[in-house]
Amino acid sequence: MNEIESLIQSLARLPGLGPRSARRAVLSMLQRRETVLDPLIRALVAARDGVRTCSRCGNLDTTDPCAICTDPRRDDSVICVVEDVADLWALERGGSFRGRYHVLGGTLSALDGVGPDDLAIPALVERARAPEVRELILATNATVEGQTTAHYIADRLAGTGVTLSGLGLGVPMGGELDYLDDGTLGAALRARRPFG
Amino acid sequence: MNEIESLIQSLARLPGLGPRSARRAVLSMLQRRETVLDPLIRALVAARDGVRTCSRCGNLDTTDPCAICTDPRRDDSVICVVEDVADLWALERGGSFRGRYHVLGGTLSALDGVGPDDLAIPALVERARAPEVRELILATNATVEGQTTAHYIADRLAGTGVTLSGLGLGVPMGGELDYLDDGTLGAALRARRPFG
Repeated sequence: MNEIESLIQSLARLPGLGPRSARRAVLSMLQRRETVLDPLIRALVAARDGVRTCSRCGNLDTTDPCAICTDPRRDDSVICVVEDVADLWALERGGSFRGRYHVLGGTLSALDGVGPDDLAIPALVERARAPEVRELILATNATVEGQTTAHYIADRLAGTGVTLSGLGLGVPMGGELDYLDDGTLGAALRARRPFG
Repeated sequence: MNEIESLIQSLARLPGLGPRSARRAVLSMLQRRETVLDPLIRALVAARDGVRTCSRCGNLDTTDPCAICTDPRRDDSVICVVEDVADLWALERGGSFRGRYHVLGGTLSALDGVGPDDLAIPALVERARAPEVRELILATNATVEGQTTAHYIADRLAGTGVTLSGLGLGVPMGGELDYLDDGTLGAALRARRPFG
């Protein structure tokens, strides 16, 4: 297999890229070496050498602890617990949360043999014991695995005095009822609020 | 801007990747450095250093002339003229053409100031003069620009004795009439053939 084919295969392994788009990307790179390929190689090497996992919250950043953990303007009393760094980034893009985060690194799964110690759950229990922590937002996904994991964490923290909360459930902004699944509609009905 | 953001931007510049899929890809890479990120960097560097443009046909390959140009089992008498390396690769995947190729590197465009000398048209005219060449398949895209370019090449080669042909037009295999544009349907009707 030559260099072109192996590059296509390496790229096709990334999420969101199939063989077809990988091929298009490779062609585009090889035809624009100075403007596309070289900068991409430099960016990859810089990220590989410069990005690390925050030992406190599990975020990816160029510093450890990460910029969120060290930001003095953020609220130490609330920790938002997410499954993955992608979820943390999504919440940060929203820009409405000003507390700290804790990345679990996945969900509990008996089937895949993922237990509490395979996730950052012991570290979370430890962090939740700090006197300044008053609330934990269990922002795992609204899936069976995400909710199982949230319930497990809630059990582990029972009696610590930390308030536990979950994300609001309901109709997404701009959502059309016709396109929503029954579970979301049911949750939205149960979570109904005074109008206006 | 930190290393993560610049990497996302570099990736998002590739065709077929937007900011969202670039972000997912970057996260996936950074979480799987040994298995995804490092092999990708190695593949990119190998491609950058090892892949060149064939000075005869314009294909991209690790050798110059490319493997297609030097394959002794291929037919020297037919040259298939394509706009881009992607088209050459698509035809090769099909596997039914056993002649040589010529990549133009684009189409003529008065608007964008692309003239014959900006494309590999002079080199094509030169190649077409070789005594062994009997047929040129003008396989430019079935777009206005592609067909204009094909007509221009046909004019340039008038009187050389080389047979000029174009790709068949019609309904693609598996194509549903309901989803085809009127131009394709019209061409398919005009190109109708005895049934069975």
